[in-house]
Amino acid sequence: MIKYKVKNSLKSPRFAGVKTFMRMENIQTTDDVDFVVVGIPFDTCATFRVGTRFGPAAIREMSAVVAKPYNPILEVGIFDYCSGVDYGDVGSVPGYVEESFEVITEGMLPIFEKGVIPIAMGGDHSVTLPELRACAKVNGPVALIHFDAHFDTIDQYFGKPYTHGTPFYHAAKEGLVDTSKSIQVGIREGLYSIEDTKNSSDLGYDYIYAADCHKMTCEEIIKRIKDRVGDAKAFLTFDIDFLDPSCAPGTGTPIPGGFTTAQALEIIRGLKDLNIIGYDVVEVSQPYDPNGITAIAAAGLMQEFMSHIAWKKKHNITFD
Amino acid sequence: MIKYKVKNSLKSPRFAGVKTFMRMENIQTTDDVDFVVVGIPFDTCATFRVGTRFGPAAIREMSAVVAKPYNPILEVGIFDYCSGVDYGDVGSVPGYVEESFEVITEGMLPIFEKGVIPIAMGGDHSVTLPELRACAKVNGPVALIHFDAHFDTIDQYFGKPYTHGTPFYHAAKEGLVDTSKSIQVGIREGLYSIEDTKNSSDLGYDYIYAADCHKMTCEEIIKRIKDRVGDAKAFLTFDIDFLDPSCAPGTGTPIPGGFTTAQALEIIRGLKDLNIIGYDVVEVSQPYDPNGITAIAAAGLMQEFMSHIAWKKKHNITFD
Amino acid sequence: MIKYKVKNSLKSPRFAGVKTFMRMENIQTTDDVDFVVVGIPFDTCATFRVGTRFGPAAIREMSAVVAKPYNPILEVGIFDYCSGVDYGDVGSVPGYVEESFEVITEGMLPIFEKGVIPIAMGGDHSVTLPELRACAKVNGPVALIHFDAHFDTIDQYFGKPYTHGTPFYHAAKEGLVDTSKSIQVGIREGLYSIEDTKNSSDLGYDYIYAADCHKMTCEEIIKRIKDRVGDAKAFLTFDIDFLDPSCAPGTGTPIPGGFTTAQALEIIRGLKDLNIIGYDVVEVSQPYDPNGITAIAAAGLMQEFMSHIAWKKKHNITFD
Amino acid sequence: MIKYKVKNSLKSPRFAGVKTFMRMENIQTTDDVDFVVVGIPFDTCATFRVGTRFGPAAIREMSAVVAKPYNPILEVGIFDYCSGVDYGDVGSVPGYVEESFEVITEGMLPIFEKGVIPIAMGGDHSVTLPELRACAKVNGPVALIHFDAHFDTIDQYFGKPYTHGTPFYHAAKEGLVDTSKSIQVGIREGLYSIEDTKNSSDLGYDYIYAADCHKMTCEEIIKRIKDRVGDAKAFLTFDIDFLDPSCAPGTGTPIPGGFTTAQALEIIRGLKDLNIIGYDVVEVSQPYDPNGITAIAAAGLMQEFMSHIAWKKKHNITFD
Amino acid sequence: MIKYKVKNSLKSPRFAGVKTFMRMENIQTTDDVDFVVVGIPFDTCATFRVGTRFGPAAIREMSAVVAKPYNPILEVGIFDYCSGVDYGDVGSVPGYVEESFEVITEGMLPIFEKGVIPIAMGGDHSVTLPELRACAKVNGPVALIHFDAHFDTIDQYFGKPYTHGTPFYHAAKEGLVDTSKSIQVGIREGLYSIEDTKNSSDLGYDYIYAADCHKMTCEEIIKRIKDRVGDAKAFLTFDIDFLDPSCAPGTGTPIPGGFTTAQALEIIRGLKDLNIIGYDVVEVSQPYDPNGITAIAAAGLMQEFMSHIAWKKKHNITFD
Amino acid sequence: MIKYKVKNSLKSPRFAGVKTFMRMENIQTTDDVDFVVVGIPFDTCATFRVGTRFGPAAIREMSAVVAKPYNPILEVGIFDYCSGVDYGDVGSVPGYVEESFEVITEGMLPIFEKGVIPIAMGGDHSVTLPELRACAKVNGPVALIHFDAHFDTIDQYFGKPYTHGTPFYHAAKEGLVDTSKSIQVGIREGLYSIEDTKNSSDLGYDYIYAADCHKMTCEEIIKRIKDRVGDAKAFLTFDIDFLDPSCAPGTGTPIPGGFTTAQALEIIRGLKDLNIIGYDVVEVSQPYDPNGITAIAAAGLMQEFMSHIAWKKKHNITFD
Repeated sequence: MIKYKVKNSLKSPRFAGVKTFMRMENIQTTDDVDFVVVGIPFDTCATFRVGTRFGPAAIREMSAVVAKPYNPILEVGIFDYCSGVDYGDVGSVPGYVEESFEVITEGMLPIFEKGVIPIAMGGDHSVTLPELRACAKVNGPVALIHFDAHFDTIDQYFGKPYTHGTPFYHAAKEGLVDTSKSIQVGIREGLYSIEDTKNSSDLGYDYIYAADCHKMTCEEIIKRIKDRVGDAKAFLTFDIDFLDPSCAPGTGTPIPGGFTTAQALEIIRGLKDLNIIGYDVVEVSQPYDPNGITAIAAAGLMQEFMSHIAWKKKHNITFD
Repeated sequence: MIKYKVKNSLKSPRFAGVKTFMRMENIQTTDDVDFVVVGIPFDTCATFRVGTRFGPAAIREMSAVVAKPYNPILEVGIFDYCSGVDYGDVGSVPGYVEESFEVITEGMLPIFEKGVIPIAMGGDHSVTLPELRACAKVNGPVALIHFDAHFDTIDQYFGKPYTHGTPFYHAAKEGLVDTSKSIQVGIREGLYSIEDTKNSSDLGYDYIYAADCHKMTCEEIIKRIKDRVGDAKAFLTFDIDFLDPSCAPGTGTPIPGGFTTAQALEIIRGLKDLNIIGYDVVEVSQPYDPNGITAIAAAGLMQEFMSHIAWKKKHNITFD
Repeated sequence: MIKYKVKNSLKSPRFAGVKTFMRMENIQTTDDVDFVVVGIPFDTCATFRVGTRFGPAAIREMSAVVAKPYNPILEVGIFDYCSGVDYGDVGSVPGYVEESFEVITEGMLPIFEKGVIPIAMGGDHSVTLPELRACAKVNGPVALIHFDAHFDTIDQYFGKPYTHGTPFYHAAKEGLVDTSKSIQVGIREGLYSIEDTKNSSDLGYDYIYAADCHKMTCEEIIKRIKDRVGDAKAFLTFDIDFLDPSCAPGTGTPIPGGFTTAQALEIIRGLKDLNIIGYDVVEVSQPYDPNGITAIAAAGLMQEFMSHIAWKKKHNITFD
Repeated sequence: MIKYKVKNSLKSPRFAGVKTFMRMENIQTTDDVDFVVVGIPFDTCATFRVGTRFGPAAIREMSAVVAKPYNPILEVGIFDYCSGVDYGDVGSVPGYVEESFEVITEGMLPIFEKGVIPIAMGGDHSVTLPELRACAKVNGPVALIHFDAHFDTIDQYFGKPYTHGTPFYHAAKEGLVDTSKSIQVGIREGLYSIEDTKNSSDLGYDYIYAADCHKMTCEEIIKRIKDRVGDAKAFLTFDIDFLDPSCAPGTGTPIPGGFTTAQALEIIRGLKDLNIIGYDVVEVSQPYDPNGITAIAAAGLMQEFMSHIAWKKKHNITFD
Repeated sequence: MIKYKVKNSLKSPRFAGVKTFMRMENIQTTDDVDFVVVGIPFDTCATFRVGTRFGPAAIREMSAVVAKPYNPILEVGIFDYCSGVDYGDVGSVPGYVEESFEVITEGMLPIFEKGVIPIAMGGDHSVTLPELRACAKVNGPVALIHFDAHFDTIDQYFGKPYTHGTPFYHAAKEGLVDTSKSIQVGIREGLYSIEDTKNSSDLGYDYIYAADCHKMTCEEIIKRIKDRVGDAKAFLTFDIDFLDPSCAPGTGTPIPGGFTTAQALEIIRGLKDLNIIGYDVVEVSQPYDPNGITAIAAAGLMQEFMSHIAWKKKHNITFD
Repeated sequence: MIKYKVKNSLKSPRFAGVKTFMRMENIQTTDDVDFVVVGIPFDTCATFRVGTRFGPAAIREMSAVVAKPYNPILEVGIFDYCSGVDYGDVGSVPGYVEESFEVITEGMLPIFEKGVIPIAMGGDHSVTLPELRACAKVNGPVALIHFDAHFDTIDQYFGKPYTHGTPFYHAAKEGLVDTSKSIQVGIREGLYSIEDTKNSSDLGYDYIYAADCHKMTCEEIIKRIKDRVGDAKAFLTFDIDFLDPSCAPGTGTPIPGGFTTAQALEIIRGLKDLNIIGYDVVEVSQPYDPNGITAIAAAGLMQEFMSHIAWKKKHNITFD
C-alpha cells in the first residue's frame, strides 16, 4: 500500500495551496516512505553570487509544472510503486559554517538510518559534505556521481577549509567517498593554475571535461559513468551549473559552455539501474532566476530521480 | 490558552521551510482559532493584466519579512491574545466564473459560520463577491469598507455580469452589503462616461476620490470612515491598487496617483476598534512584482488586520 | 500585383510606429491577401501560469527584429509572391470560455471562407479548438501537425471540458481533424497515470516523444511528419513550449528537455511543400518573457510559415 | 460632431488589438482633430542610460489602463468635447542628431500649422528643441512650462551642441521661448560647478528647486507657475524624471528626491486653464521599466493634458 | 590645493571607464584626502535575503548619475573644499563571521587613525560593528545616529552573537558608542515580543518609531536628532531599509511604511553641522534592485555626506 | 618576467573591489604587455535595441566568474606566458558618429602600433570599423574572421553610411580588410531583398549560413575558416548575436536559430594557431541581460582569446 502520494491536479488547480514539492504532503517522517524530498537552504559558503538559501522554496514553487507522476519514457508511475513526502527543510545557523554542518548532518542522519532515500535540494554545494557525513555514518564510503562545471576539490579558500569549492576534497580526505569508484562529469571551469588540474586525480577521482563530453553521445557518457560506479552504493550530486547558463541562469557561478537540459535528463535517465542511495540538486539561486527556468530544470531532474526509485521497484532490482 | 502561533525566527531562519503565511501552521481548521488566513487564487475575472492566482503564494513567501508578531504601535502581541492558522486555499474552477464563485462561497461559509474572522488573499477583486455571499448568509448585509482605485460598481462587461469591475454592483443588488453604512476610499480611475460617476452613489455607497484624500490627513480619512460605518458589522476589502503603482506595481490595473504604504498602514491602524468580521487583500499579481514589494505591502496590511483582532481582545472590546 | 507589403526598415527605423506584425499594414480585410496574421488574445483556459492574452502584442512588438522579408534559405522573398496584412485581433469574452469560443470561431470563419491562410497568434492552446471549428466548417476534417510538450488530449479538468489541456480531445471527438493523418511531435510532459498515455492513440493520433526526437535528425522528423500527413489539407499548430524553457521561458507550462529554436526552424522549413491551410503559434506569455526571446522565436517561426506560402507560389505548387 | 474617439473597453477587452494610445484610431491626420498624440522615438542624445526610443511604444501599451475618457475630478468627458487621434510617430535618422532634428521639426510643423495641439511622447529630452522650432515658426516664442530634475541649459557636451542636457539653452538662444514667462520646476540634479547654477537664470528662466517645492503645497506651486506664465501661449514639457525614481524608474538619468505621481497629477490638473498649445512627456525608457509603472505615469499625465483641452472647450475658455 | 577630484562628465561620458564611486580615482591612500569612499562587501550575517556583497559594486555603478559635485541646496562644491578617493574595498572571509570582522576592523583602522572620514558602503548591517570597533580605538565611544526600520539590538540569533540584527547590542555592550547621545530613527519592524521593545532603551538608546516620524516635519526630526547628539563625535549609519520598499526595493529585509528619498535627503542635509567622523550606507542588495533605484538613492545620500564635509570646511566649522 | 597578472581569487573574494576585466590591473599602458582588454562603449549606431554602451561594464562585472587563468583544454596558463592589463575604455562623442569614429581610431592606434593585441569590448558593431581603420594603418588589410547572425554589409541606412549594419561594407571599400581571405560565419538574418544576398559576395567575402553550419561539425567549420584565412594577419570580430537568443538575450538584434555557447567556444578554441592580431566582442547589451548570461558568455570567449595568445607563446608559434 502506497501511503503518501501527490494531489490530483485535475481536481485542484496546480497554482493553489501551500507550496510543497510536486504537491506531496509536508510531513517530517521516515515511516512508510521510500524517499523524502528535503531542503537544505544554506548558502553561507558561496564565493560569488548568493541566494541558494531560497533554492528549496523556488524548486517547490516551480515543481507544480512537473507535478504529474507517470514517467512515459521509463514507463513507470512513481506513486504506483513508491511512497514519498516533502520532509520540509533541515536547519542551519546562517553565517556559521561549522555549526551549520553539524545541524545538517544531524538532520540528514535519521533519513539514511531508516534506509530512506533522500532527494535533497541545496543550498550551495558545500551542503553535500555534511550530507555525505551522515551518509557515511550509515553506509561507509560511497561512490560519488558528480555532475558539475567545477571540480570543487580545492583544499581551502581564504585560509579556511569550507566553501562551495572544497566539499569533494574533504569528502575524499574524510573517507566519505570511495574515489576509485567516483566520477566527475562536465568540468569546464578555468583553473587557478596547472596544479589545480591534479587536485581531482590526486584524490583518486575520475573526471570528464565538458569539452570532451560534447564530443560523446549521451550513451557513451552513461556507459563511462556506469563502468566506473558498478554496483557500488552511490550518491548522486547534481550541481545545476552542469547545465549551460542559458538553461540554468539562476546559479552561483554560471560557466559558459555547458549542457542542455535534454542532455542532462537523458544521462540521468540512463543511470536508473545504479545503486543510488541518496541524491541532491544544489546551487539553484532564486534571485537570479526571474522566470523560474532553473528551478524547473531542477524539478525535472528530481522527478527523474524519483522515477529511478520506482523503476527499480517495478523491476525488482535490488542490490545485495 | 493560545493554540496556534508562529514559529520563532530567532531559532529557525525565516527563509527555511514550506511557505505559510507568517510561518503559522498550515491546518484547515476553524476550531480553536480567532482568525484564519486563507487564499483565493482565482483570476479568471481580470480584465487587463492577470496573475493574481499566484497572489496567495507570493504573499505567503514575502510574509516572512513581517513574521514578527508584536505590534509596537498598537502595543499588542498578536499571539498573546489570538490563535490563528494558515487555512490554505479555497478552490476554484479556473476558466469558469459562476462555478468558481460557488466553490468559493462554499469554501468560505464554514469560516463565517464558526464566527472565525477570515483574512483572505485574492485573487482578483471578483472574489469578494462570493466571500460576501458567504458572509451575508451568516451575518446578513454588512457595512463595506472598500479601499480601491476603482469603484468596481459597473453592472456588466462584454455582456456578462462578473468581472473584477463589477462585484460591488452585485453585492449591493443582492443585498449582501448595507450600502448606507458603506464607503469607498481612494477612487481615481478614469471613467467611461459621466453616467459611471453615478453608479456608486445610485447604489447608496459613499465614496472619497483620491484627489480629495490627498488633501485630507489620515485622521480625517479615518474619521470619515468611522462615522459612516459606526458599530455595524463590517467587511474590509483592500484592493492593493489603492496604493500608488510605485508601492504596488504588481497588480492588475495599476492607476497612477495613489497612496503610500505608510498612509495605508496608518489609516488601517486607525480602524482597529471597528466591528470588522472579515478582511481581504486582493489584486496582488506576482508576475508583475519581481522584487516582491507589492506582496510585502499586502503582508504588512494583513499583519495590521491581525493586530486589530488582538487589540480588541486585549481591550475587551466586543459588539452586541 | 502584390497589394500589401511590409515597410522598408532602411527608410523608417524599426522601433518607430504603431506595432503591427513585421510592420505590415493593420487592415481587417480578406480581399487581395494570401495570408493574414491575426491575434487571439485569450487565456482564460490556462491551468498554471497566465498572461498569453498579451502574446499577440508581444509577438508584434518583437517581430520588428525579423522584419526583413527575403528568406535566404528557401530563396524566396515573401512579398515578391504574397500579399498579407496584420488583421488585428479577434474578440473574446474574458472569463467566459464557451462564449469566447463562439466569438473566436465567428472571427476566424470569414478568413477560411475566403481561402485566405490565417497565421494566428494565441492565446493559450484552447484557442485552436474554435479555430479548427471554423476551419472544419469550410474544409471538413484536416490533418493536424501538432508541435507541443503536451498531448492536450485530456477530456476534462475540474469537471469541465475546456482548458488548454483538452483541445485535441474535443477536436477529434467533434470530427474537426482527421487523426489518421495527424501527428503530435515533441511530447515530454509527465502524465497523471498510465491511462493518459493512451488518450492520444485511442483518438487515433500518432505521436513522437521528445526523448525519441532527440535521437533523430531533423530530416528524420520531417520525413515522419510528411509520411503521416501526405497531401491532405493540414492545420499546423505550434505550442511554443515545444521549445526548451531556455529558448521559450515565456510560456504557461514550461517543461524541461525541449528543443532549440534552430531545430524548430529547420523542421518547420522542411514542411514547406505540405498543403497547410492554417497555422497558429500559441502559449507565448509575455509576463514571463522579460527580454522577449520567446516572442522573437515565435516571430521567427511565423516568418517561416509566411515563407512556406511564398515558396509554394514561386514553385507553382498547388493541391487539387 | 466629435469624429475620432476611443474604443469602448466594455465591449472589446483592453488587451486586444494593435496598440495605439488610449485605443484611439491610428491616423496621420490634422483634419477634424483638436489634438494628436504623436511619438518621437529618438534617443541618440542621451548621455547615460538609453532606450527612450521605445518610450512611445511603451506608453501606448500601458495607456490601456487609463483608457477611460471621463475625468471625474475635472468633471469632463474628453471625447464629449474633443476629437483626437494617435498620429503615429514622426521620423528620425538614428545616430545622426542634426538630420534627425530637421526630420522632427518637419514632422511637427503641419500639426502646429493647423492649430492642432500635439501631445508628444519622447524620446530623450533633446526632441523638445526641434518641437519648439516647429512651434516657434507658427507661434513665435512661447512660454515654457518645464518639469524636470535637470536644468537642461548647458551649452554643450563633449564639444557638441546637442544632447538631452542642452535643449533649453538653445531654445532660449534661438528665440524659441520667451524665458521671461518661462519656469523650470523640480530641479534637483547636482551641478558641475557653481557657474552652472547661473546658466538658467542668465538665460532668463525662473526656476524652483525640488528641495523648495517639497516645502510648498501643490496649490502654491501651481500659483507660482500661473503667475509666471499668465495668459501667454505656452508649451508644457514634462521630463518624467521630475518624478522620484520610485515612481519613474524607467528613465535615462533618475535623480533621487523627486515627486510622487499624485503630486504631479495635482499640479498638472491645476494648470487646466492656461493657454497651452503643445505638450510633451519625455525620457520614458522602456528597458528600465520592467513592470511599466513609468509608462503608466506618463499615460496618466497625458490623460490630464487631454482633459485640459476638453475642460477649456466645455467652459468656452479661449485666448485672444 | 585639492589633490583628488572627480572626472569631468562633460568631457568623458559617464558610462565609460572602470566604475569607481562618482568617477573618483581608485587609490588606496589616506594621504591628502579629507574623506574616502570604501566598500565592505560582506553579507554573511544576513538573516533573510542576501546579496549585499554586491552593494558596493552596485552603488559605484549607479553613482554616475549623481556624479556632479556642486550641491546647489547647500551651495557648496564638494571638490572645491575637499579631496577624496575611492579607496576600493576592505577584505573579508566569506562564510566566517569573526574572522571577517577582524579583517574589516583592521581595514578601517588606518582611515580613522589618519583622521580621514570614511564613507563606507555595506554589506549587511553587521559590518557597522567592526567599523565602530576601529572607530572607537581611535576616538573612544561616539554618538550613533542610526537610520533604520529595525532596532538591530537583539543579543543573539540561533544561539550566535553576530547577525545583521545584533550590531548595536554589541556596540553598546563593548562601549563603542555613547548610547546616551545616540538615537535610532524610523523603526517600524514588528517585534518578536514585548521584551524586544525594551532592548533599545535598556541599552540607553533613544529612538523614534516611523509611525511617529510620519506625524513630524523633517525639521522636527532634525531637531530631535541634533538635540540628542549635540557636538559629540558621531558616527552616522544609514540602513537603506529606512526608505520605503518603493524607494529601496533592493535590500535584505524590506519593511512597508518607510520614508521617501526626498524626506531622507532633507533630514540628512539638516545634519550638516554635526561633528560626524564616519558614515556608512548599508543593506543595498543588488540582486533585488533590477533597475538600480536603491543604489541610486544610496549614492544620493553619500553625495550629501560628502557635502557635509565640504560645507563645514567652507564655513570653517570645527569641533574642539 | 610576466609583469601584469590577475588577482588571486583564493585570497580576495571575487566580488570585492573595483570591477576590472578578470580582475587584472586597470592601467592604460602598452608597455610590457602582450594584450590589453579595452572597452569601446559606443552605441549610437544601433538600429533597434540600444544599451551596448554598458557592454564593457557588464562584461567586466561578470568576468569575475571566469577569473581563473589556467585553460585546461588548451593546457596553458594565460599569465604563465602573457602579460596583460585592463586598459580602460576609449572615448566617444555620444550622438555624433563620425567624430566618435575618429576618437576610437585614435584610441586604438597606439595599441596596434606597439604590436599589442587588443581584445576590445563593444559597443555596437559599428565600432569594428574604426578599430579596423587603426589596425590597417599599421598592418594593412587583414583577413576578417567574422561571427555574426548578420552580414553587416549594407551600404547605408536612412541615407547615412554608418550604422551597426554597415561596417563591413565600408571596411571592404576602404581596403581595411582583404576580403579574399575573409569569412562570415553564422548568418541567419532575413534580408530586405534578393539583392542583399549579393552584398557580401560582391565585396569578396565568403560566408556560411547558420542553417548550413547546423549541419556541419565544429571541426568542419574550423577547417573551413582556417582554409580561408591561412596564415594571413587576421582580425576576429565576434558579434554576440552569433549565439542563439537563449544564450545571448542581451543584444541589440537577437535572431532565433543561433548557436550554443559550447559550440562557439569549441570553434574559437580551434582557431588558436591562426595569426590573429586583434579581437573584439560586440553587441552585449546590458539592459536586456538581467541575469548576466550574455556578459558571461562574452567573458568566456575573451578568456579563450587570451588563451590563444598564451598557447602560441607556449608553443613558440610565430608568423614571418
